Amino acid sequence: MIKIGVDANGGDFGVEATVPGSMMAIQKFKDIEIVLFGDEEKIKPLLTNSERITIVHTKVTMDMGEHNPVHAVRTMKDSSLDMVMYACKRGEVDCVVTSGPTQCVIMASHLIVRRLPQMDRVALCPIIPNYDKKARLILDVGANVELKPYHLGQFAIFASVAAKNVLGINNPTVGLLNIGSEPGKGREFEQEAYDYLSNLKDIDFKGNVEPNQIIDCPTDIVVTDGFTGNIAIKTLEGTAKTMGRMLKDEIKSSIGGKIGYLFMRKNIKRFAKRMDTKEVGGAMIFGVSAPVVKAHGNSDSYAFSSAIRQARLMVESNLIEKVVSALPKEEVKNE
Amino acid sequence: MIKIGVDANGGDFGVEATVPGSMMAIQKFKDIEIVLFGDEEKIKPLLTNSERITIVHTKVTMDMGEHNPVHAVRTMKDSSLDMVMYACKRGEVDCVVTSGPTQCVIMASHLIVRRLPQMDRVALCPIIPNYDKKARLILDVGANVELKPYHLGQFAIFASVAAKNVLGINNPTVGLLNIGSEPGKGREFEQEAYDYLSNLKDIDFKGNVEPNQIIDCPTDIVVTDGFTGNIAIKTLEGTAKTMGRMLKDEIKSSIGGKIGYLFMRKNIKRFAKRMDTKEVGGAMIFGVSAPVVKAHGNSDSYAFSSAIRQARLMVESNLIEKVVSALPKEEVKNE
Repeated sequence: MIKIGVDANGGDFGVEATVPGSMMAIQKFKDIEIVLFGDEEKIKPLLTNSERITIVHTKVTMDMGEHNPVHAVRTMKDSSLDMVMYACKRGEVDCVVTSGPTQCVIMASHLIVRRLPQMDRVALCPIIPNYDKKARLILDVGANVELKPYHLGQFAIFASVAAKNVLGINNPTVGLLNIGSEPGKGREFEQEAYDYLSNLKDIDFKGNVEPNQIIDCPTDIVVTDGFTGNIAIKTLEGTAKTMGRMLKDEIKSSIGGKIGYLFMRKNIKRFAKRMDTKEVGGAMIFGVSAPVVKAHGNSDSYAFSSAIRQARLMVESNLIEKVVSALPKEEVKNE
Repeated sequence: MIKIGVDANGGDFGVEATVPGSMMAIQKFKDIEIVLFGDEEKIKPLLTNSERITIVHTKVTMDMGEHNPVHAVRTMKDSSLDMVMYACKRGEVDCVVTSGPTQCVIMASHLIVRRLPQMDRVALCPIIPNYDKKARLILDVGANVELKPYHLGQFAIFASVAAKNVLGINNPTVGLLNIGSEPGKGREFEQEAYDYLSNLKDIDFKGNVEPNQIIDCPTDIVVTDGFTGNIAIKTLEGTAKTMGRMLKDEIKSSIGGKIGYLFMRKNIKRFAKRMDTKEVGGAMIFGVSAPVVKAHGNSDSYAFSSAIRQARLMVESNLIEKVVSALPKEEVKNE
């Protein structure tokens, strides 16, 4: 049995999304048990069965707009987020799934579950749907504002093992997010990272990837610092969402549009689904000693169940063990 | 008469786009003269009239994939790009319009037309179409990989004057591109820039703008360093273009989609037009002593005519003079 720890109070919709999502996952996967950390009174009425479900009660919830993540994680030990992380640290659950506030999830993973000794930094790694309907990994998108080239090297190794085990990509390729395709492009950081990654064994580095390739990406993995990655991922999200609204507006703006929509409703829905992250699961926290999946804050029950599916796969494939054996024994720090 | 210098050989389509684009502009604006720098043999057959048109012959063209812009600008003095820039420097034309290679255009503006003494850096400033159908300015998106906060201050003042005179926005507001909305967010650079911009008179600074607001932006102007801006703008472009392909694919994938398209063809076209930069003109090079407009490399004749319209407006409104009087007399360098 794979034991999945769920931060049931977390996210924009709390138990309304996390509990039905957990029920979907329990139904689908017979090899999982779920421990729900959250408000028992609110959870119980939402349970459709109690098979392989345990509740650990707490009413305390981390605020989605929390401004001081370190302080919150250190002081709110009775919050559903801290409690599920501690349970994971003690080995009572094998992994954590949460749609809580991103920076708090990163800090709690770091401070409670703890960083792997082989990794000098943790990274936030979402899965990006692409034009060819295959998923890509991009990291870091927000755990560190500044990084060294060897951090990107560790991320590239970690993500290569994850791409193989979680996404089923046999020989994953790695690119460096940069403002041009040639080697000398970018800041000093990108130039040094390019050289570092070129010389790194164990990864298949293919050079620079430009941001206009972000959803039609030539590599399976894209590495970058957390500031740049966050800019890229949020620009992508905002553009996709706003373009969706523009399309809706234009369709609704005339009778022709409304009639046309009756014919192509399915096509438009398939289009919307192609950019929908609900299908692919959550962002993974890489670099800590257990799988942590951070579902989007506004995840509905389906999206949350996808995140559970993903966490299950990370445990089942022994991702962390495989990563540890892939990472260099001694810490490789050239600078 | 406003004298517009055109790099006729430049861009992916060369004279095939620049000459018909110039013809459109000449037809529309009776107060402009155009000097075409380019291959006379190829230009002549494309002229629909010769009124207010002069040709300065050169066959030499800067390569769109030029890897060494500084060297190219310094040595290719007989290229159409260098020649139009020198003509501008000598005052033979009032402004420059080109769809040549971006970095060469930036370097030629810098080295030939020359930086204004009041500006410590030049910036590349495109116009972004937004959800509300109004334009926004974002800078720098590629002239400098690293900047100081006071550079962003100069850019903010420059862009505020330009927004008023070129886009007709009366009290333009300014935002700082950042990974969070609160003041303490981002790298040290963003934190310092936030403070610097907050204390700057002459601009209406509204705080941080997150990248997911890029095409639904709360401020008229967004300032950022050229690396981050380039990442954002290319992610935006790539997402918009690839989503357009996805929509096309899905519509074509079934009979229902094809029939629906017959009804909503106009709606879909209006949708596509909302994100089309052909309408808004080119990116402006800010910080040099004459208006330079860099049209997209793949500009067609219509897009090129929009860029000419924009350059005309920059000259007509005395933009450069107004900017010079808005910028602080002594150079303000706090660091």
